[in-house]
Amino acid sequence: MDLQAVKQSLESTGESLSASVDSLPGRFFDSFILHGLKIDTIEPGRVICSFKVPQRLVNTGNFLHGGATASLVDIVGSAALMAAGALTSGVSVEINISYLDAAFLGEGVEIEANVLRMGKAIGVVNVDLRKKKTGTLVAQGRHTKYLAASSKL
Amino acid sequence: MDLQAVKQSLESTGESLSASVDSLPGRFFDSFILHGLKIDTIEPGRVICSFKVPQRLVNTGNFLHGGATASLVDIVGSAALMAAGALTSGVSVEINISYLDAAFLGEGVEIEANVLRMGKAIGVVNVDLRKKKTGTLVAQGRHTKYLAASSKL
Amino acid sequence: MDLQAVKQSLESTGESLSASVDSLPGRFFDSFILHGLKIDTIEPGRVICSFKVPQRLVNTGNFLHGGATASLVDIVGSAALMAAGALTSGVSVEINISYLDAAFLGEGVEIEANVLRMGKAIGVVNVDLRKKKTGTLVAQGRHTKYLAASSKL
Amino acid sequence: MDLQAVKQSLESTGESLSASVDSLPGRFFDSFILHGLKIDTIEPGRVICSFKVPQRLVNTGNFLHGGATASLVDIVGSAALMAAGALTSGVSVEINISYLDAAFLGEGVEIEANVLRMGKAIGVVNVDLRKKKTGTLVAQGRHTKYLAASSKL
Repeated sequence: MDLQAVKQSLESTGESLSASVDSLPGRFFDSFILHGLKIDTIEPGRVICSFKVPQRLVNTGNFLHGGATASLVDIVGSAALMAAGALTSGVSVEINISYLDAAFLGEGVEIEANVLRMGKAIGVVNVDLRKKKTGTLVAQGRHTKYLAASSKL
Repeated sequence: MDLQAVKQSLESTGESLSASVDSLPGRFFDSFILHGLKIDTIEPGRVICSFKVPQRLVNTGNFLHGGATASLVDIVGSAALMAAGALTSGVSVEINISYLDAAFLGEGVEIEANVLRMGKAIGVVNVDLRKKKTGTLVAQGRHTKYLAASSKL
Repeated sequence: MDLQAVKQSLESTGESLSASVDSLPGRFFDSFILHGLKIDTIEPGRVICSFKVPQRLVNTGNFLHGGATASLVDIVGSAALMAAGALTSGVSVEINISYLDAAFLGEGVEIEANVLRMGKAIGVVNVDLRKKKTGTLVAQGRHTKYLAASSKL
Repeated sequence: MDLQAVKQSLESTGESLSASVDSLPGRFFDSFILHGLKIDTIEPGRVICSFKVPQRLVNTGNFLHGGATASLVDIVGSAALMAAGALTSGVSVEINISYLDAAFLGEGVEIEANVLRMGKAIGVVNVDLRKKKTGTLVAQGRHTKYLAASSKL
């Protein structure tokens, strides 16, 4: 693609959103990602939830957007750390995601977050996204948080 | 936090979004992230852009959401690969992000994406987010894409 | 630490090795890491092996060196991809490791590698290192390889 | 490759090392990796060094082993954090590496480590490996350390 086309693509994509969205309230990002998600299981250090890939979270290929996947690793992973007894929500240190398969619009997806380490300072959680029907992995991520953050603020 | 509270927090956060959002059009995710972003520089293998952290992308701590940061690494990184001559937009293989500092609501942030490798099959791009005023790094990520994907589809 | 001390530390550490080692044969690196490792289970897409942390692979804190851990993720992960039917050994695209606990000199460690994705072009494998006695995770890594590499050479 | 062959390959590779190596002294791993490395520049938060890819660190393809690359990201990255004023050497939290090109036996390689964040608890450093002749990136890694570790021990 030529440079002008790439520029146009990035900028016009941003413009297509009604400016009013700019004034949406805080926590809107979490709501935007989580809307429609159901918690199936929650126990110490473990959260399983599920959703159907909604229109608003798909990319131009009509499958779950990589940014939405990363956001789910962030948010559901944080919930699992809270469920493991984290006293603060902490701050993210590192997130990584391997994209393994496409989850298309309307497909049922299960997200399983398991805490790998729960220290005083550092918590680490693994997050798997799988197709509900076949069990095929869609993505696997790890999320590392610094849990003693409140003392810093 | 007790388990019931964590569950409630995830589910009520999702519910707070008007159901009508569910029917938003495709590419909405990109628009949602990119709205307000300006391209400052675009050249082969390199994209620099900037924005002010908007209300809709902050977390409960009032700074840029980790999921939004990951989404910017995804989208702006992909644009830099296109600007390096990628013939297809490809599919994501891996994204990782180190979170280095908080970018608060209203702060000016510059995003610089530089292609590290541009092969026939694999492209890799580094993405830095910096505070415009001080140059302090907010986050650094890497995005690896499989560029020969179209032949697979 | 002052800069001169850091420099000295890096350089004198390197010097302490007899120069003759420089002429050691190829594949020595794999041997150096794998010596003493036993394969417990090998099946399609899955390898489990174990070893006792040897003197040569510990750091100054007397526990398994982070570089040795990364090398095990690389080598044992590659073996699991071979065991999943990879036709070539491929080339590494990305490796990441979260360090979760220390495995001290002499401790029994089990390594389990499970293939997450086995495509024509891209293979991804998860590698867990656990303490044999307690099951505590020592490290978790992911290794992504480009499997069609031979056609490139 | 069939399973028996993969098993044989892992085990015989380990066996080929003289058992006497098992009794090598601690810090041997660092020496093994660093031998032949020269520090070219060291300043607060930044270390540049160089070496020629030695026989002992190449893989069967005759280029720098992925495990050796990861070990260099670990060790040289740690040195840069020390050079940035870290009071303890800390413990590794996360290492990731993108492999971008092959550095063949005898090729000159430059390693540049730059500290991205130097907090009280968390330090993050970026490490680039480049071919000396052409500047081509061989690998890029990030290393995150927990720096307050001594208080925990």
